[in-house]
Amino acid sequence: MNKNSKLTYKKAGVDIKEGDRFVDMIGPLVRKTFRPEVMTEIGSFGALFRLGKKYKDPVLVSGTDGVGTKLKVAFLADRHDTVGIDLVAMCVNDVLTSGAEPLFFLDYFATGKLRPEKAAEVIKGITAGCIESGCALVGGETAEMPGFYDKGEYDLSGFAVGVVEKKEIVDGSSIRKGDSVIGIASNGLHSNGFSLVREIFFNRKRMKPKSKLKETGTTLADELLRPTRIYVKAYHSLRKSKITIKGMAHITGGGITGNLPRVLPKGLQAVVAEGSWPEQPIFKVIKGLGNVPQSDMMSTFNMGIGYIIVAEESKKERIIQVLKKNGFDAYLIGMIEKGVKGVCYAKH
Amino acid sequence: MNKNSKLTYKKAGVDIKEGDRFVDMIGPLVRKTFRPEVMTEIGSFGALFRLGKKYKDPVLVSGTDGVGTKLKVAFLADRHDTVGIDLVAMCVNDVLTSGAEPLFFLDYFATGKLRPEKAAEVIKGITAGCIESGCALVGGETAEMPGFYDKGEYDLSGFAVGVVEKKEIVDGSSIRKGDSVIGIASNGLHSNGFSLVREIFFNRKRMKPKSKLKETGTTLADELLRPTRIYVKAYHSLRKSKITIKGMAHITGGGITGNLPRVLPKGLQAVVAEGSWPEQPIFKVIKGLGNVPQSDMMSTFNMGIGYIIVAEESKKERIIQVLKKNGFDAYLIGMIEKGVKGVCYAKH
Repeated sequence: MNKNSKLTYKKAGVDIKEGDRFVDMIGPLVRKTFRPEVMTEIGSFGALFRLGKKYKDPVLVSGTDGVGTKLKVAFLADRHDTVGIDLVAMCVNDVLTSGAEPLFFLDYFATGKLRPEKAAEVIKGITAGCIESGCALVGGETAEMPGFYDKGEYDLSGFAVGVVEKKEIVDGSSIRKGDSVIGIASNGLHSNGFSLVREIFFNRKRMKPKSKLKETGTTLADELLRPTRIYVKAYHSLRKSKITIKGMAHITGGGITGNLPRVLPKGLQAVVAEGSWPEQPIFKVIKGLGNVPQSDMMSTFNMGIGYIIVAEESKKERIIQVLKKNGFDAYLIGMIEKGVKGVCYAKH
Repeated sequence: MNKNSKLTYKKAGVDIKEGDRFVDMIGPLVRKTFRPEVMTEIGSFGALFRLGKKYKDPVLVSGTDGVGTKLKVAFLADRHDTVGIDLVAMCVNDVLTSGAEPLFFLDYFATGKLRPEKAAEVIKGITAGCIESGCALVGGETAEMPGFYDKGEYDLSGFAVGVVEKKEIVDGSSIRKGDSVIGIASNGLHSNGFSLVREIFFNRKRMKPKSKLKETGTTLADELLRPTRIYVKAYHSLRKSKITIKGMAHITGGGITGNLPRVLPKGLQAVVAEGSWPEQPIFKVIKGLGNVPQSDMMSTFNMGIGYIIVAEESKKERIIQVLKKNGFDAYLIGMIEKGVKGVCYAKH
């Protein structure tokens, strides 16, 4: 560029027209997620959601998260329609642990140079996640930041808000010795541990996204990019069946080791029986190829359990039955004992 | 790293202990923003905020934004305590345009390698912005993403949620011909147009953050990093004075040209008198150094007006008076006329 030429915003790397084209492209997708409470059109300053009068003492539950370096796998595989599901899942599963109904979602998408078609794939995933979790995609920011991200790369963050009646909050405070710990199956790796995963498969083993993984019977990309499971329908099926749940944990970074204690009262530990749920092959592969110590595996990955429910022991069979009926494989994986707050692993 | 050595999460670039140290460091800052409605401690899965019973027909208003490439200026100047204010301002000013009271905020902070001290500076800015706008910082995600951001760099996004009674929503629908357009002074560039700003000062003119800018009497860094003004107290001072406001616009990317029409009903245009508010020197400098066309200036920068209020003509003096009394310089900058929805500039 001539140093004295006229400088406009487009020349400086930001193309507002491409941004507008992108907004037009995603409009129909986004509108599909709208619930009757959504009061605004796309493009307003703030997004309006009418909470209305049906709650007696509403408590808003919010959560934010990103997809982490799982995005790098999407870049490598040039596949962009699943990470949006991960993004929604990471946020709404967190919100769900309080017993809240997810209401709405907003996303932040940042890239060096906006490629509307590719970005629309990402938004497609986000809208799919929103529909699965019953929340409306009410807003989002598409940030074009020249010189910020490597070519073809982007970052994503999301934000979910839900609501729960104050007297129906699930917070783990009623958990007692003898309660049952029920694990719901994950959908593979979900969205955590990808720095380690990438180091193993792409750096150490020099594998490609299209490499076949014989243990899983899929390509590496298919296995690694399988989207994080959304557990909203799991909890709401239990609620509809009027089963009281005492505590819930979303198994993200930190694994069961790091996440289950977050809902335990002081003086109680969860004794979890390793091997009490079906082993998913991907974790065995990672452990073997990376020579990763078992304790690191347990405190990094979900190991096959994406969401945990703690309830009175007498309800365990009914819970597992209702979950299965609703398409969620669930297992009795442990129980609550007296002890220092934390997780203690026992052999099955 | 030995290709066959044991691989742990820390070796793969993610240090959970540094993350925990960071959380401990920011805890006291974050707690200072808490309002009585905040029901959760830092570190829970979802953040609980008790909306309670005081609203008859509550409408939740949410917004998300980032700081854009203004962050690059913060990196260059190695000054990280102001961009958090920008982040909050960008979100809460959007939420405010509906007449909502901001309630809570969540942030997403992503970096290649977490430097707790530097990240804590960013959070310090976020908490300052939250206190200024009266909202609680209820949650956040700190994402350490090795191989994602350049060394020492990070990205930021934020999410704000506010509430407004349905019958008190401000949405521009009652704006009529003859109404007054009142501009509230900006605090300089705010957070938009920085790709252009950086191109001019750092690439073309090879200036440094410490370079003195004679037109502003400050260093370049001081001028460019001055935080975005938060207008929450401006609107709430008008509300307390029981002055009816018909529409509000936050002047962000797109300038007055792009943002003011967002609140105008069909068939109405805003005639804005250029020169009816004090010129801020930074915009003159940018226009001159970059040889930027005036229409590009008006559709890229706030040009000295950060927030706009539209109200009945009879209320204009009172509005300006109340705003001034509350520390906000405000000017009558135009009026509403019949015409194609948009902004038409007239000479003062």
